This record gives sequence, structure tokens and C-alpha cells, in this order.
Amino acid sequence: MPTLIHHPFCPFSRSLRLIAAEMGLGLEFVEERPWEWRREFLLLNPSGETPVLLDDPDVTACGIEPILEYIDETRGLACGDRRLLPEGIVERLEVRRMTQWFNRKFHDEVSRLIVEEKLFKRFSGGSPDMGPIRAAKANIRTHLRYIGYLMRQRNWLAGEELSYADLVAAAHLSLVDFCGDVPWEEDEEAKHWYQRVKSRPSFRTLFNDRMPGMTPAPVYAAMDF
Amino acid sequence: MPTLIHHPFCPFSRSLRLIAAEMGLGLEFVEERPWEWRREFLLLNPSGETPVLLDDPDVTACGIEPILEYIDETRGLACGDRRLLPEGIVERLEVRRMTQWFNRKFHDEVSRLIVEEKLFKRFSGGSPDMGPIRAAKANIRTHLRYIGYLMRQRNWLAGEELSYADLVAAAHLSLVDFCGDVPWEEDEEAKHWYQRVKSRPSFRTLFNDRMPGMTPAPVYAAMDF
Repeated sequence: MPTLIHHPFCPFSRSLRLIAAEMGLGLEFVEERPWEWRREFLLLNPSGETPVLLDDPDVTACGIEPILEYIDETRGLACGDRRLLPEGIVERLEVRRMTQWFNRKFHDEVSRLIVEEKLFKRFSGGSPDMGPIRAAKANIRTHLRYIGYLMRQRNWLAGEELSYADLVAAAHLSLVDFCGDVPWEEDEEAKHWYQRVKSRPSFRTLFNDRMPGMTPAPVYAAMDF
Repeated sequence: MPTLIHHPFCPFSRSLRLIAAEMGLGLEFVEERPWEWRREFLLLNPSGETPVLLDDPDVTACGIEPILEYIDETRGLACGDRRLLPEGIVERLEVRRMTQWFNRKFHDEVSRLIVEEKLFKRFSGGSPDMGPIRAAKANIRTHLRYIGYLMRQRNWLAGEELSYADLVAAAHLSLVDFCGDVPWEEDEEAKHWYQRVKSRPSFRTLFNDRMPGMTPAPVYAAMDF
């Protein structure tokens, strides 16, 4: 069984947990605290970042986009209807565009700022800096409106079928939601899309993440928020 | 013929110019100044970022990783020996890991800082901030040593054949080199690898980029540096 080296509050790791659950791919989990810069972990992934997927017989897959492509290349076809990267070249392009949107743009402008200031600084002992938190809270509104705009034209974020894009986007949003910082009133369609993703069985595993001294916002695991 | 909407000092755009030349893929070029946030450009790519590839009949490909996958899916097989994403699943994984290393890690830690402070601020009218420039100059040493470490084990950055990874890495480095900020003395193997990429015919096109009031560092187009 493949092993996912992850951290519960790493958005990229969270998206892989959702994706594996959707695809019916069993995983073993090993938790890594990337800020400790453990030598053994750096030997596996010199960038020092989660997630890392260890697959049989001797494959080490590092980094979210390479792992997503790898999972599709090794398991996609066998998934049939549950495949999360579509077959058509133009459809794949749109799934990858939206996946990158959240893994890069949303991460840079929102989720990285919130996670570093509000969650990781608790472990590393720093105190949260309000500047980045304020910036993230302003930036997230544009992203919610963009999700809403897309959802008025499509069934899911990158097309008619559930894809990597929905689960990656929801993984990033789930961490901001954990901190109670998603202004869901900004866009009704965006909220409705998130409710649909959140109510999927794959999402349940995320609700149980707890860290000492950290209580999720009341909306976090609620279906009616 | 496909059209690349690019900026001469966007490292992602530069890598596509190299890659197209290596693959023998003819492109038309349209220059975009992303900091102007032109409405017509935002309609093509709502993220507002270069590069964008317009392909026949009606394909708009946005973002570096989606474009790289798209080019391989549409032209890779026909390239034969000049294909830049290998066929083997494990080999692809390593090319994508190293491509992402430079497009994300090196970009965040080095090339984005240098390009924004030293190049783009000339257009936008700001004055360079020395903090990020100093950070980039410190960070780049680790990356050069990592390139050197890899080159002592392999023929090219991600394996035995030239791949996306070499051209993406060289595109980022070329902009830092334009500013004279690559400490080539740090690692002899890294320098030797860059000399090999730089001496390829595909690289010549980059040497002619000029912007008003900006003179490249003397090493920029030199083969013996």
C-alpha cells in the first residue's frame, strides 16, 4: 500500500487525502513536521516539503503536481468513472489550470498566509502577524467570486465532472475555514459548490484533524454554514 | 501557427521559447505587459499572468505547467528524440519534480525576487528593495550546489536526456544572469551544466532581448564566463 508522508495542515497533503478517498486508493499515513527539517525527510525530498508519496516497488514522488500526474498515470484508467483527470486534452488543460490556480495563486494570496500565521506559528512559537492575515482576508473575496462565476456556467469547478480541481480547491479552502476566515456570504454559488464537496464521504476524514490547543471554527465541520 | 503571449523577462515565458525551439515548434510571439492588467488579456487568462499559448483551432492554454503538459500531449510523440518529457513513468516524475523545483522553489526564493526588484520595478516606477535582493543572492548558492550535486550523478538535470527541467531551470537562471547575480564560482559542475545549455542554438533567441535603459551584465551572452 502506498504511503503518504503528510501534515494535517498542509493544503497539498489534504488534497491528496481527498483525492485518494475519491479514487478508492488506500494509503498509509506518516505525519511529518516540515519545519523540523529532519535529515531523513530531506533525503527523501530535498525541497523539505510535504507531501511525499512512497509507492511500490521503489518510487518516491515529491510535490503536489508531480504526484497528481503520477497517480493519474498509474491508477487513472483503472478508476473508470472515478478518474479525476479527464481524458480529453482540452478538458485536462482546464483541470490543470484550475488546479494550478489554487495550488499557486490561491496558496500565495490566501491559504499560505493564513496557515503560516494562524496555524504553523503555533508550533514554531512565533506570534501571528496581522498584515498577511488581513491581506488574505481581502484576497479571498475575489477567489470566492471567481468560483461563483465559474459555477454559474458549469457543474463542477473545471467542467461537468468532479475533478482534481474541486478537491484541490476545497482542500485549500478547508484550512481557511478551519480558522473561520472564509466569508461565505460573499458568493452564494461558491458556498453552494463548497457544500457539495464538503458533504462527500471523502471529506469526513479531514474533520477529525486536531492539533493540541487548536479548536476549529464552529463552521468547520458543519454542513449548514 | 500557435501564438505565445509572453514577456521577455517572465521566466516561464522564456522557458517556453527555449522549449519550442528545442522541439522545432514554430511560434508567433505577442508581448504582454502583465502589470498593466489589460482587460483583453484578463479575459484570456483571468489570473493575469504570462505565458498564455493560443493554439488552433480554439485552445487557450494558461500557466506554465498546464502548457508544458499540453505541448507534450499534442506534440510530444511526434518529436521523437527531441521529446522533452520522457515516456517512462518514473523518469517523468523526476522531470516534473525538477521542473516544479525551479518554477516554484527557485522562483520563490531567487528569480521572482531578482526580476521584480531589478527588472519589473524599472517599468512600474518603483525603486529596488535591497532586502529581497540580498535574500535571493544568499538563496541562489544552495540551488547552485544542488544543481552541481545532481550533475555529478547524471548527464542532465533530471536524467540522462535533456528535458523540460534543464530548459526551465536555465530560463530562470538566465534572468538572474542578466542582472549579473549568479555566483558561478560557487559550483563548477553547475556552471559547466549551464554552459552546455547556454551553448545550444535554442538559447540564442534569448540573448537578443533588450529593454529600454537596461543593459545586461557582461557575462549574460558570453560562452566563457
